[in-house]
Amino acid sequence: RNIHETCSQFGAAHRWGPGENDTGMNRLALTDADKQVRNWFVKEARALGCEVEVDEMGNIWAIRDGVSDRRPTKDGKRLPPVMMGSHLDTQPRGGRYDGVLGVMAGLEALRALKEQNVKTWRPVGVVCWTNEEGARFPVSMVSSGVWAGEIPLERAHSLKEVSGEGKTMKEELERIGYLGDKKCSFEEMPMAAHFELHIEQGPILEAKGKKVGVVRGSQAYKWFTIEVVGKEAHTGTTPYAQRADALMVANSMIRYARYKGEVQGVLVSVGVYQVFPGSVNTIPGRVKFSLDIRSPSDHTLVSFERRLRRKFDVIAERPGFSGLPCSVTWQEDTNSPAQGFDERCCKAVKESALSVLGAETGDLEQALGLVKYQMVSGAGHDSVNTAKRCPTSMIFVPSKGGLSHHPEEFTSEEDCVRGAQVLLESVLRFDRE
Amino acid sequence: RNIHETCSQFGAAHRWGPGENDTGMNRLALTDADKQVRNWFVKEARALGCEVEVDEMGNIWAIRDGVSDRRPTKDGKRLPPVMMGSHLDTQPRGGRYDGVLGVMAGLEALRALKEQNVKTWRPVGVVCWTNEEGARFPVSMVSSGVWAGEIPLERAHSLKEVSGEGKTMKEELERIGYLGDKKCSFEEMPMAAHFELHIEQGPILEAKGKKVGVVRGSQAYKWFTIEVVGKEAHTGTTPYAQRADALMVANSMIRYARYKGEVQGVLVSVGVYQVFPGSVNTIPGRVKFSLDIRSPSDHTLVSFERRLRRKFDVIAERPGFSGLPCSVTWQEDTNSPAQGFDERCCKAVKESALSVLGAETGDLEQALGLVKYQMVSGAGHDSVNTAKRCPTSMIFVPSKGGLSHHPEEFTSEEDCVRGAQVLLESVLRFDRE
Ligand SMILES: NC(=O)NCCC(=O)O
Ligand SMILES: NC(=O)NCCC(=O)O
Repeated sequence: RNIHETCSQFGAAHRWGPGENDTGMNRLALTDADKQVRNWFVKEARALGCEVEVDEMGNIWAIRDGVSDRRPTKDGKRLPPVMMGSHLDTQPRGGRYDGVLGVMAGLEALRALKEQNVKTWRPVGVVCWTNEEGARFPVSMVSSGVWAGEIPLERAHSLKEVSGEGKTMKEELERIGYLGDKKCSFEEMPMAAHFELHIEQGPILEAKGKKVGVVRGSQAYKWFTIEVVGKEAHTGTTPYAQRADALMVANSMIRYARYKGEVQGVLVSVGVYQVFPGSVNTIPGRVKFSLDIRSPSDHTLVSFERRLRRKFDVIAERPGFSGLPCSVTWQEDTNSPAQGFDERCCKAVKESALSVLGAETGDLEQALGLVKYQMVSGAGHDSVNTAKRCPTSMIFVPSKGGLSHHPEEFTSEEDCVRGAQVLLESVLRFDRE
Repeated sequence: RNIHETCSQFGAAHRWGPGENDTGMNRLALTDADKQVRNWFVKEARALGCEVEVDEMGNIWAIRDGVSDRRPTKDGKRLPPVMMGSHLDTQPRGGRYDGVLGVMAGLEALRALKEQNVKTWRPVGVVCWTNEEGARFPVSMVSSGVWAGEIPLERAHSLKEVSGEGKTMKEELERIGYLGDKKCSFEEMPMAAHFELHIEQGPILEAKGKKVGVVRGSQAYKWFTIEVVGKEAHTGTTPYAQRADALMVANSMIRYARYKGEVQGVLVSVGVYQVFPGSVNTIPGRVKFSLDIRSPSDHTLVSFERRLRRKFDVIAERPGFSGLPCSVTWQEDTNSPAQGFDERCCKAVKESALSVLGAETGDLEQALGLVKYQMVSGAGHDSVNTAKRCPTSMIFVPSKGGLSHHPEEFTSEEDCVRGAQVLLESVLRFDRE
């Protein structure tokens, strides 16, 4: 209940129905709504007896002591904690579950440990990663990327917001009071393991009648900002042959990419598209658009990108729907290669899922049929970055209609609670080994 | 000299070269820069002994008495004035001549009349029309449209700016102090004639080696705002077959329109294109774009629009590059049918052009070869609206490279001055008859 209801308290938006929870979310990273939910999280975690620290990317680390903390070690260092992590930021028109479910479930797990007075060997905690979505600052999973040493801190700090006044991540971290002192690095802040509960955001579990997915890894994806430059001109007086129409050229590129994507099994999407100067009777002299390409295979993605770069040059130079040539430039924003998850962590998730479903159904046979054992995430997650530096796995629960990044995103109360139970058991199983 | 240099004083922007005048303009209607240039105009006109009035659309009427004003008429009314009109607003990335040239030339004409102490029979004046470009408030020539009774005052007043905070024309007229009392109507404020000097904005005069064009009318055009609605979804987890991708669907529509336009001799342009929610990893659930279609023939344009409406419905319903259908709606923003100009006014322009060029070259034969006698404007102008209610014609001077709605728009000093002379003589010729 706690999990289901608190989700939508901060930054609710895009109401789509009359029910109490029939709302979407708009809680972009480092906005005031994000600050509020962060403050709430810190208060909750402290009330559960956790020590709370904030690092220089604004990631919040809430950690509960383990039994091992009481034994003096030779070098005075504590054992690395087993962490449950996810994110609190959302898409501008996002849903109630994406990210926050994993954080809430982590808090519930800590509450259960406290209420049942369970002692773990290692410290156990919850981490909230900053700007996972990449919706405000256009690099997704940027803060777990800094932690993993994949993205330099300076680059992350100087990232500018996609729309608005172009504020940087560092400015906004400071503004909302979440620019911490702690270094954001796997060396300074190691983890024994990272478990993440997340909604699937796709249609597979629902379509196959499964309740829990054991996530084995994630597909590769890259994000680019592509800029096409032509020349402004009057729409009423400029013959086709004398136009360098950046919009028509950009459209041809997108069309080609989408077509080739279908042929080669690459998912191609354009989510941002800006036209300059943006006047009805001026032919656009410049267009900037985002390109998001994904494939389970790194190799496919690399060769697809190479092909697009070649073809976009050709389209810009000999545009079918623009008499004069345009120019095109690429900027790479995100590069997230395919990533496999840890065998031991996946085993902990699988056994926990069977145990929870077995207890629920009273029938192990039935439980066996409710788990999807081999899932690959279509979306990126902070776990993709943590997997580079510590044992990691994820737990997926079904998304209604496969819908996500949409206000009507929905996962039932039962699925949320079941996922939280699997998360807690996975942590305990991992800790016990 | 006056004409050439004062053009770029208010709202200069988009500098493209080192020279004093190597700049473009950004003087959107009813912005602070527009207010400044208006204040300047009012001061100049008063200094030339004009009476200045502002109407409820912010059009500025500066009128110099004619001899007829001194003769008492039966009903106490003055004769309608012969006006020289154009506009002071520019595109967001516009040039130094579009619009303002016609206003400056009008002021110069009044100055010449004053300096030479010339008395005209009718009153003679200059009118500055508000928001001709339609770049800020998306109906071009909206204020001459209200004057002509083509557009209801309420509709014009409540027009919202294209980008920004959605302020209305009325709010902005009030804010800059140009919401006048005078009724904006051809009945309350009749004109004996309307002459407009304008740069061609196209390549014809330059290509044919002509110096002055006698404009016989303008082609038809229509503007629409088209909205495509699909459904947001996650770019990484949503298979093609389950997407209702508004951007891909909008692109197919634009591509079709552009292709058919080429086949049928209709100019098709898209200058505004907005994507919602505008996040890299969310498939756009909604796209809004402007459609500008033009043809010399009303009939062609009407049947072209009908064809597009049918085809866009088909594309939305069975999209090639979106698995699920989208919906599409049209809003008509501007409808400017083809308009012919007045024979008597065109004659005055033609004769004045020959007289000015004859005096310049000292050779009428040569002068005859420097005039283009039959021009049709590709762009809309306030004269298109005035032509519905009073005798009207236009004078075109060459645009370098046919370039307009671009910071590098250029018309030489000689061409500007020659145009101004033709404008003045046309007014005097018309008044004399
Ligand atoms: N889970 C999720 O939506 N992550 C954002 C990064 C991505 O687009 O895959
Ligand atoms: N002359 C001019 O640029 N007018 C604006 C209306 C149009 O787009 O034709």
